[in-house]
Amino acid sequence: MPSGYFSFKNDYAEAAHPAVLEALCRDTTTQEPGYGEDSASVGAAEALLQASGLTRGEVHFIAGGTLTNLVVAAAFLKPYESIIAAESGHICLHEAGAIEAIGHKVHHVPQVNGKVTAEQVLKIVTTHTDEHMVRPRLVYISQSTELGSVYSRAELEALSQVCRQSGLILYVDGARLGSALVSAASDTTLPELAKLVDVFYVGGTKNGALFGEALVIKDPSPEHHFRYHLKQRGALLAKGRAIGAQFEALLSDGVWLTLARHANTMAARLATGISRAGHRFAYEPVTNQIFPILPTALVQQLEQRFGFYRWGQESGGAVTIRLVTSWATSEEAVDLFVSAVG
Amino acid sequence: MPSGYFSFKNDYAEAAHPAVLEALCRDTTTQEPGYGEDSASVGAAEALLQASGLTRGEVHFIAGGTLTNLVVAAAFLKPYESIIAAESGHICLHEAGAIEAIGHKVHHVPQVNGKVTAEQVLKIVTTHTDEHMVRPRLVYISQSTELGSVYSRAELEALSQVCRQSGLILYVDGARLGSALVSAASDTTLPELAKLVDVFYVGGTKNGALFGEALVIKDPSPEHHFRYHLKQRGALLAKGRAIGAQFEALLSDGVWLTLARHANTMAARLATGISRAGHRFAYEPVTNQIFPILPTALVQQLEQRFGFYRWGQESGGAVTIRLVTSWATSEEAVDLFVSAVG
Amino acid sequence: MPSGYFSFKNDYAEAAHPAVLEALCRDTTTQEPGYGEDSASVGAAEALLQASGLTRGEVHFIAGGTLTNLVVAAAFLKPYESIIAAESGHICLHEAGAIEAIGHKVHHVPQVNGKVTAEQVLKIVTTHTDEHMVRPRLVYISQSTELGSVYSRAELEALSQVCRQSGLILYVDGARLGSALVSAASDTTLPELAKLVDVFYVGGTKNGALFGEALVIKDPSPEHHFRYHLKQRGALLAKGRAIGAQFEALLSDGVWLTLARHANTMAARLATGISRAGHRFAYEPVTNQIFPILPTALVQQLEQRFGFYRWGQESGGAVTIRLVTSWATSEEAVDLFVSAVG
Amino acid sequence: MPSGYFSFKNDYAEAAHPAVLEALCRDTTTQEPGYGEDSASVGAAEALLQASGLTRGEVHFIAGGTLTNLVVAAAFLKPYESIIAAESGHICLHEAGAIEAIGHKVHHVPQVNGKVTAEQVLKIVTTHTDEHMVRPRLVYISQSTELGSVYSRAELEALSQVCRQSGLILYVDGARLGSALVSAASDTTLPELAKLVDVFYVGGTKNGALFGEALVIKDPSPEHHFRYHLKQRGALLAKGRAIGAQFEALLSDGVWLTLARHANTMAARLATGISRAGHRFAYEPVTNQIFPILPTALVQQLEQRFGFYRWGQESGGAVTIRLVTSWATSEEAVDLFVSAVG
Repeated sequence: MPSGYFSFKNDYAEAAHPAVLEALCRDTTTQEPGYGEDSASVGAAEALLQASGLTRGEVHFIAGGTLTNLVVAAAFLKPYESIIAAESGHICLHEAGAIEAIGHKVHHVPQVNGKVTAEQVLKIVTTHTDEHMVRPRLVYISQSTELGSVYSRAELEALSQVCRQSGLILYVDGARLGSALVSAASDTTLPELAKLVDVFYVGGTKNGALFGEALVIKDPSPEHHFRYHLKQRGALLAKGRAIGAQFEALLSDGVWLTLARHANTMAARLATGISRAGHRFAYEPVTNQIFPILPTALVQQLEQRFGFYRWGQESGGAVTIRLVTSWATSEEAVDLFVSAVG
Repeated sequence: MPSGYFSFKNDYAEAAHPAVLEALCRDTTTQEPGYGEDSASVGAAEALLQASGLTRGEVHFIAGGTLTNLVVAAAFLKPYESIIAAESGHICLHEAGAIEAIGHKVHHVPQVNGKVTAEQVLKIVTTHTDEHMVRPRLVYISQSTELGSVYSRAELEALSQVCRQSGLILYVDGARLGSALVSAASDTTLPELAKLVDVFYVGGTKNGALFGEALVIKDPSPEHHFRYHLKQRGALLAKGRAIGAQFEALLSDGVWLTLARHANTMAARLATGISRAGHRFAYEPVTNQIFPILPTALVQQLEQRFGFYRWGQESGGAVTIRLVTSWATSEEAVDLFVSAVG
Repeated sequence: MPSGYFSFKNDYAEAAHPAVLEALCRDTTTQEPGYGEDSASVGAAEALLQASGLTRGEVHFIAGGTLTNLVVAAAFLKPYESIIAAESGHICLHEAGAIEAIGHKVHHVPQVNGKVTAEQVLKIVTTHTDEHMVRPRLVYISQSTELGSVYSRAELEALSQVCRQSGLILYVDGARLGSALVSAASDTTLPELAKLVDVFYVGGTKNGALFGEALVIKDPSPEHHFRYHLKQRGALLAKGRAIGAQFEALLSDGVWLTLARHANTMAARLATGISRAGHRFAYEPVTNQIFPILPTALVQQLEQRFGFYRWGQESGGAVTIRLVTSWATSEEAVDLFVSAVG
Repeated sequence: MPSGYFSFKNDYAEAAHPAVLEALCRDTTTQEPGYGEDSASVGAAEALLQASGLTRGEVHFIAGGTLTNLVVAAAFLKPYESIIAAESGHICLHEAGAIEAIGHKVHHVPQVNGKVTAEQVLKIVTTHTDEHMVRPRLVYISQSTELGSVYSRAELEALSQVCRQSGLILYVDGARLGSALVSAASDTTLPELAKLVDVFYVGGTKNGALFGEALVIKDPSPEHHFRYHLKQRGALLAKGRAIGAQFEALLSDGVWLTLARHANTMAARLATGISRAGHRFAYEPVTNQIFPILPTALVQQLEQRFGFYRWGQESGGAVTIRLVTSWATSEEAVDLFVSAVG
């Protein structure tokens, strides 16, 4: 990329946080069992359960988010069961039909600020009543959402309640869970979230890891045999230590939350600058993804020096763009962007 | 594990070779495109094509072997098409039905020293002739095989010929391709192998990488859209650089072959010692997996100090065990084992 | 069912038209080849191609509509390819996720009078552009639609054009194709429709057959091997003559159109009576499915004597119901219903 | 086919027994609920449970054998679970990979007179022990087998015992169950068989029906939702009465056993004649499929006047052929064949 050019396209453009890499390079000649039974994975799993306020549960480390989502679908759904998700959800749009390739329908419900509501879930459940239709079984939510928003505790409670009443599994795609938890817009801690949902993952890839996500299954049935599903979908890494060690580092002293806080701070700094320059946002900027609405001419200028995605065409010649910050975003890059906007 | 204990269970018990880790830790704050379009992946792909004597072709970096195999099946087979493999093949036994989960039958043919023969392939093809049966489309071979053996050039040529005559794809699972290429039993170079087959992968996980395999598609059709398949199966890593960088290191100055040579040398040292102690082998020891036949009492003793798998019960109270060496196996460990046998 | 009770729930409540049953009972001891290669199937296939104005093409006889739709999906789509359909389409709602179970996403687009528009198709195509998303490949339309409406020639031409420009297959679920073709609202003949689309089926089950649909593939590739897909999905009936004979009877002298015309006439008679009684319709009644909007109290009364589905709750205490007529509906039953409404 | 030509290729060359057709043509204008809830299906289900000596259980009527087998696999297996079957089993060879297309591995075990043994099952179970391998879950047997043989009660008891001990489902493909039950080689009644197995189907297609199989699930879990699986795989016929009525006719006064007895008698008459002419059999002829070994020259002569399949090439210029008789085979046809052999 050209010098002086900075990309706000995503939160995985840099490699990994030094603490993560250091962990990967430690004890490299110690022999460890394969397939997630190494000491680093065991330690990281315990640390994650503890951070989640859980006294039992299974933790599995998986290379990426799409792989995690599809194994969850394979493991928790019978062939005729379906998933409810916001139309803006990652599984709806940006996983190349991975869930359907496993055999399951995803109900796309209209997103409400990037979210699914309890009412929407209930409506799908009550209109799918016999064997000519699929049977809804899992509600997929992203925290933070693909539009940068955050489910409030009240929203999570409402979803949790409707799921329990209707026999649905509530699953959180936490690719950016760190960013959600430390957002000023959030009123939920990790243990509180863990209490309300059934299965969730803590994302590493988009929060300073080289790769890897940590999936938590709160109440594993002895019959669910999750490792068979992992193996069958190619998700059981031989050197499981490669993810375990990264999560040990991220979970130690809350490094993952520190990194997420940095990303959010940089996004807020961007948002403040853009706002001061007189521009509005398509969605309230509260995490590390923000969506300013800028004049087309300005967007074209910015594209010379910065990387970002055009998200949508607005009326009146304006464009919504998406800016994403990460653990590695510098104040300098942010300030350069703000100056360019101002 | 207890001090003084050494595992010969597999070739992925240690983390990764220092050159690999160093590459992972280099340029970590440089922003790179995601999903395998980073400069490291591009560079490693070029290096691999060159090492394979190919002037064109696609290279894809995938986190593990099972994932690689299942994406290949998804991409190259129509729903009614099947795979021919030796019953001892990894996809037949140790991938939890990953190929079938994608929808395809695998014909298990009796292994001949761990291999499939051209005659076996031809027989399957000629007996599957109408729409009541599946249609064989891909021949899966492992080089080296799961029994440590190596296909000779003549064997590869025969398979190649029958595949071309019958419209079959010849695919090499190269989880241990390095070990095969540097084996004294091999008479085939990488470019020679690449010429005879259609698709193959060079394994990293079992040859010094932290994780990752490099898949080579020699003659990609513009219609095959392999990246869609990768994404759909969760095999498109966001930070593709994490595998690209490792392969850049492994391919530089033939590091991967040096590591494989070390593993083979250690296996040969083990074999020589075991042989001198008067024991035979179930399969000729030529790569980094060897299969001595030892008295049960001796095996029980060895199990106190060394890790390995019992492979099969022989008549007369003997047991075939599997010993695997790696890039990280030390002469000390080998010599301790040999003393314990002798 | 109680005497005097008549069901307008569907068009498959009666067994089969006498001409169909007679054909099934003819030449029953003649030995015929199995799996659709019998003389009745061959004859019916020729008759259908001729009626469609086609000089080439494949015809396959399949036991039911869902089975037909899923085999078409299996045969024509690669794993990452998707289907575009109106949200009211049969594959979206009433096939229990059969298409997704085969591995493919269905884009549900908002129905416009039960139909998909060319603009909607184009929008899906132009927003699905890379390997993170599925790749639209087939447009599914029902003629007549699930809401009783009929695509006009202009609408079909527009769809046909967008499909050809974008490399999409245009597929017609013709479960009620007879009813569409003979509708006063239709300006398209079967040969005209066959010219504009790629694959379509003529429904038997809902038009006087005991069971069975006739699928026409206009331009079969020598590589598509459709019979393999049929066999693999359990859709290749051993005694293919059982469907072939029925279609021979239905296609002879246009019996199928005569039966459809009767069903439409009965629906029109119902609609006229209901309309005269002062009630409106949710969708214009033009085929054998009509959707009057009636007061709740009246609906409750009618439910004592007639079978039908409540389709939707309207504001102001009214209910939309669905009434379906068939080849077997009598004027008496219609007139009883009309009296009960009036 | 040429006059005077008679086919012994299969047992589905003729249409259907008159009693079956008569039932199809009865009460055709009575309105009935769809999808297997009609009175004929309900009546036939009760009759079948009673004939099986079962006081509870579910019966489902499905259009064909492959469809039945694949729905059973879809409904009873989790993604990582597999089926054990004899290599000569219909699902192994002649269903175009239908089970694998649903996602499941089939272990092909060497056939012993067309059968699987309890020892073979136990061996597969005890060697599949962790998540790197599939998990055996269902044993598939055909009664009678594809080689015309019949499991004895002792064999069924041994299989039943090993299945119960190992948590496996014992499933009987009864495409030719009638022929088995009335075979002189059988020492098992239908209630006795029903007691020993978990799921079985009674074949109609190959025993006088126009099409259709009757699946019995002895101990349906309230959670298994079998009708969802039927619908999703296209196996829920709208006019379920079309199969229900046939089975009412077949089950009335044991018509199905009478038809099977005729087929067996014709096969025995063939076998006796062939045997008297000095020829041997590849498998003992005990049901309606027999496998004489004849000189090639004789086979070539016979092929001029009779239809049958060459089953295998024997040493010494002989050929094993398969002859199949049905409910419709005449003594004349049999005697013509015998004369031609003699």
